[in-house]
Amino acid sequence: METVVGVIMGSTSDWETMKYTCEVLEELEIPYEKEVVSAHRTPEKMFTYAEQAYERGLKVIIAGAGGAAHLPGMVAAKTVLPVIGVPVQSKALNGLDSLLSIVQMPAGVPVATVAIGKAGAKNAGLLATQQLAAFDSSIYEKLKKYRETMKDKVESSNEELQSWNV
Amino acid sequence: METVVGVIMGSTSDWETMKYTCEVLEELEIPYEKEVVSAHRTPEKMFTYAEQAYERGLKVIIAGAGGAAHLPGMVAAKTVLPVIGVPVQSKALNGLDSLLSIVQMPAGVPVATVAIGKAGAKNAGLLATQQLAAFDSSIYEKLKKYRETMKDKVESSNEELQSWNV
Amino acid sequence: METVVGVIMGSTSDWETMKYTCEVLEELEIPYEKEVVSAHRTPEKMFTYAEQAYERGLKVIIAGAGGAAHLPGMVAAKTVLPVIGVPVQSKALNGLDSLLSIVQMPAGVPVATVAIGKAGAKNAGLLATQQLAAFDSSIYEKLKKYRETMKDKVESSNEELQSWNV
Amino acid sequence: METVVGVIMGSTSDWETMKYTCEVLEELEIPYEKEVVSAHRTPEKMFTYAEQAYERGLKVIIAGAGGAAHLPGMVAAKTVLPVIGVPVQSKALNGLDSLLSIVQMPAGVPVATVAIGKAGAKNAGLLATQQLAAFDSSIYEKLKKYRETMKDKVESSNEELQSWNV
Amino acid sequence: METVVGVIMGSTSDWETMKYTCEVLEELEIPYEKEVVSAHRTPEKMFTYAEQAYERGLKVIIAGAGGAAHLPGMVAAKTVLPVIGVPVQSKALNGLDSLLSIVQMPAGVPVATVAIGKAGAKNAGLLATQQLAAFDSSIYEKLKKYRETMKDKVESSNEELQSWNV
Amino acid sequence: METVVGVIMGSTSDWETMKYTCEVLEELEIPYEKEVVSAHRTPEKMFTYAEQAYERGLKVIIAGAGGAAHLPGMVAAKTVLPVIGVPVQSKALNGLDSLLSIVQMPAGVPVATVAIGKAGAKNAGLLATQQLAAFDSSIYEKLKKYRETMKDKVESSNEELQSWNV
Amino acid sequence: METVVGVIMGSTSDWETMKYTCEVLEELEIPYEKEVVSAHRTPEKMFTYAEQAYERGLKVIIAGAGGAAHLPGMVAAKTVLPVIGVPVQSKALNGLDSLLSIVQMPAGVPVATVAIGKAGAKNAGLLATQQLAAFDSSIYEKLKKYRETMKDKVESSNEELQSWNV
Amino acid sequence: METVVGVIMGSTSDWETMKYTCEVLEELEIPYEKEVVSAHRTPEKMFTYAEQAYERGLKVIIAGAGGAAHLPGMVAAKTVLPVIGVPVQSKALNGLDSLLSIVQMPAGVPVATVAIGKAGAKNAGLLATQQLAAFDSSIYEKLKKYRETMKDKVESSNEELQSWNV
Repeated sequence: METVVGVIMGSTSDWETMKYTCEVLEELEIPYEKEVVSAHRTPEKMFTYAEQAYERGLKVIIAGAGGAAHLPGMVAAKTVLPVIGVPVQSKALNGLDSLLSIVQMPAGVPVATVAIGKAGAKNAGLLATQQLAAFDSSIYEKLKKYRETMKDKVESSNEELQSWNV
Repeated sequence: METVVGVIMGSTSDWETMKYTCEVLEELEIPYEKEVVSAHRTPEKMFTYAEQAYERGLKVIIAGAGGAAHLPGMVAAKTVLPVIGVPVQSKALNGLDSLLSIVQMPAGVPVATVAIGKAGAKNAGLLATQQLAAFDSSIYEKLKKYRETMKDKVESSNEELQSWNV
Repeated sequence: METVVGVIMGSTSDWETMKYTCEVLEELEIPYEKEVVSAHRTPEKMFTYAEQAYERGLKVIIAGAGGAAHLPGMVAAKTVLPVIGVPVQSKALNGLDSLLSIVQMPAGVPVATVAIGKAGAKNAGLLATQQLAAFDSSIYEKLKKYRETMKDKVESSNEELQSWNV
Repeated sequence: METVVGVIMGSTSDWETMKYTCEVLEELEIPYEKEVVSAHRTPEKMFTYAEQAYERGLKVIIAGAGGAAHLPGMVAAKTVLPVIGVPVQSKALNGLDSLLSIVQMPAGVPVATVAIGKAGAKNAGLLATQQLAAFDSSIYEKLKKYRETMKDKVESSNEELQSWNV
Repeated sequence: METVVGVIMGSTSDWETMKYTCEVLEELEIPYEKEVVSAHRTPEKMFTYAEQAYERGLKVIIAGAGGAAHLPGMVAAKTVLPVIGVPVQSKALNGLDSLLSIVQMPAGVPVATVAIGKAGAKNAGLLATQQLAAFDSSIYEKLKKYRETMKDKVESSNEELQSWNV
Repeated sequence: METVVGVIMGSTSDWETMKYTCEVLEELEIPYEKEVVSAHRTPEKMFTYAEQAYERGLKVIIAGAGGAAHLPGMVAAKTVLPVIGVPVQSKALNGLDSLLSIVQMPAGVPVATVAIGKAGAKNAGLLATQQLAAFDSSIYEKLKKYRETMKDKVESSNEELQSWNV
Repeated sequence: METVVGVIMGSTSDWETMKYTCEVLEELEIPYEKEVVSAHRTPEKMFTYAEQAYERGLKVIIAGAGGAAHLPGMVAAKTVLPVIGVPVQSKALNGLDSLLSIVQMPAGVPVATVAIGKAGAKNAGLLATQQLAAFDSSIYEKLKKYRETMKDKVESSNEELQSWNV
Repeated sequence: METVVGVIMGSTSDWETMKYTCEVLEELEIPYEKEVVSAHRTPEKMFTYAEQAYERGLKVIIAGAGGAAHLPGMVAAKTVLPVIGVPVQSKALNGLDSLLSIVQMPAGVPVATVAIGKAGAKNAGLLATQQLAAFDSSIYEKLKKYRETMKDKVESSNEELQSWNV
């Protein structure tokens, strides 16, 4: 299976968040690539990346960014592949700026936005996989199993809880 | 082509927003169904809907809800199909509550969140279509054309602007 | 006295908050059970728990959850017992997302929401006890005494304050 | 059945909201009283009301207030009956001030907070009834029926939706 | 000069903030008293304190509180002396809840609100002194001198700045 | 009695709010003056106004402003008379910007902030009067009577409420 | 004098706001051009516009946009001319999303942000003129006169105010 | 080249932020001065500074302030030179108060606002330089080179990223 998911981020400082996206993709054996692409510092690279994504075989792009987070929306403006945006938690406003900059896209150019920070990064990997799963039953089965494991973990953590005292 | 997109909403009062989703899907000729499914008033129906979606051939579910908007996240908990959440603008908090209730999902169960209100509803239809387009070149071409039309409209609106005075 | 309060939480990571609920219930000698029930990872268990609560003799359910906190509202959708929701403080948005996801329920399905975090968790235990106290004079007396103790503590802390210098 | 629910509000201007509480209580045949009690303009009356509530046979108090909404919390400070707080939508801040002033109570004195405005007012009536239902099977049955009716309305509204075009 | 300023706080945990009020009052030699008075835990004491303040010779009351901060507003409801409210920084919402609970008072009962936390606490002491200064020229002169000292400190800190390198 | 309260505002568009301040002062027979003084458009006039206020016999200044509301804080920087700030409700952010710009003053220069909009404007007039009342028993008595009237109005509005049906 | 200011906006719906920018520029006789340039719908045009701006003689670019407002920041990424961003008031979030998307730019690529809506649009025109004025004494004089007129208007409005009654 | 940029701040505690402004100006060899000027503690100095700035040859003023941040707007009220405002991150509200106090200026007196904290401080230095660059081709070339370096750093950081594992 060739590379189907592109994971991009505005700076290596976003890796602390975006590594959770990559972790999920590896766990689910989804071939992906990762790349630093900055909307503001390398706008031309961003355009080229978005323009070539479909031809290069990507099925979905995941873009993480913080603050005035323009990367997901601008990539989305240059491709009709689905783009998933991960709001990286910013220092002053805790990611509320990142979230609004990504999710409040105007009619015509959507970005599939997930939660701020680590949970969102993980979910971006899952959401990309779910989009593939809709068209690939073996991935679909993998995700079903992944959910079962989650369920089992709840049960075993519940057993643990019973032994805890206040 | 069979029905591939399920558009659900918590109440018919959400139709004023969600009709923009349906409008886009019709314009792009994506077969869809629409249904009132309430997380809080018809929880069993919601579970059944989510559980059967994959078998019934749906590739993506779009769920609109407002306030403490639990529909998208709960549907997502019951299927591994991608779920797109549309935050309907609420009365008191203007949809900020809807947005946070939909987008801030915990790790494990993503919801692809779009903008609050009409723009988001329209984009939900486009995002669903983009997910299909990644695997269907004829839909891909349709979306490329759709984008071209958007571009043309900007140009003609720009011509109009030149004639306006302050 | 049989178990009358059910304390549930989405994950053991919520225990750091919800233990204050249990602490209060133990202090006031209200029989309770505690259980990990996840809206998103164990939706079926959540439904079963809510459906059986009344028959099992519970009088009130306390549910703690953070972020897009759906547990209290979804449990409330499946029972007509009163449900108390505790917004667990989330990492990025400090529990504002938890609070709005829990309190902004649509007409028809209320959740009795308390403060974010530790104070709310403690108060959830007290609120449950107050609901019982309305129908049980011995619990009512216990709560009156509890309040007296609180008052006394203020007085003794005031004496302490008099000895402090700036 | 004697009066078991006290519905109080800071001013008759809150009636536009709080009438939905009364409407629900009437529909479910729960005997209630309604009273203007202002925390800031009639503090002594507020104290007397709260102090006598238990002896007068009330089982739960519902208090609606807006802005720096102190009524629910101050009533709760003077009784150990459960107090439900309804955040009335304020002019400038849309009820966010009302919500935070009511829900963020310190440990020791809980207020069961519901949603801002009309939905919250309606739910306050239901929540009070649910607290009674935990100890009264005939009220419990009434609420179960009420929920069934809600479910039926969703279904019939869904049929209507099918006939609507974009 | 007899005690003219009453400094009250809901709990000794507020001392970490309110000590800055007392520090300023001592520095300016304004006789004050300090007292723990809790709106929710000692409501009767709060009422008595407010009712007797004028007769006891107080000219202004400073009340610090956090979260659903009802102390300043409720004291203001029981006296026509000016009441200054200090929003103590709360854990989850950083004092935004404290601020709104104090400042958004309904027409009829004002609270003179200052900034959240330490700066506000210090300013509460100054504001109380300014109210006295309007009627006492010796206090007025002291405040003028206090301002001059502030000005001088800016100048000397500016000299320091000139020697700093990036 | 000479003019003791100065009511200033940044523009005549603030009159719609600030007239409620003046109304209260007239009702309570407190001699006041009103003046348009703009921090940004007439900074020199603002400085002169603040500098001369004490000598001219003013005891308190009330300043209304909206948006980046600098008038109250800058006047406070130029006098040690107490300054009351009224946050005028702004168009986009509903007065939250006005409130924060006024209340969040740094240590050293307090502004006594009241609620956003009409209620705050009214309360500014009352707060100024309360500051005078602390040193003038006839004003004190007038305010006590004013409060009694408020209380009576609550009682008569309560009688009205009893006749209303849902 | 050749065209020195470029006024761009994402859509003609922004004209209702951006016309105030143009109005000011005309009043101050600053040669400008206006153009619809959409970050999301015409990204290539946006890049070309930004790239050629300096060579075409522009000294400053003013960009208005709403929601996830990427136009100002992306133009700024493609030129080192100063870019002024005008946050257009959005429907659901009143321009808070527009403001944060524009102002919270990462280190390296600034956008000079002004207030939300009409006031900001007007100020964008003034700010651009002020940047020119720093290097052109005749424009500097014009702005000084403009300020004098503003001051005069305050004075005449103040005279008007004196005649108004509450 | 004489001093063309004035960097001012309300207190030396702002230096931790504003040093990034100075660092950029030194790196780009733009002659600047730095000064503590407090709106609230040294209002006269602030006025004098602003009034003399143009005559002293400054082309742009950068002002950093936090909380109820009045310095940038008040300086802007006293000069028609462009003023750049840097919102310093405040303790309780994380700089949201600083941002709104600076950016929401009324029509007539603009402040060019940048991001909260360190990124904004850095960008203030760049924005000032960009304003100079529009009229000075050698500075223009320096900025172009600065951007190239930024781009190169992205590329080398991207190479680094390729070697990282989750």
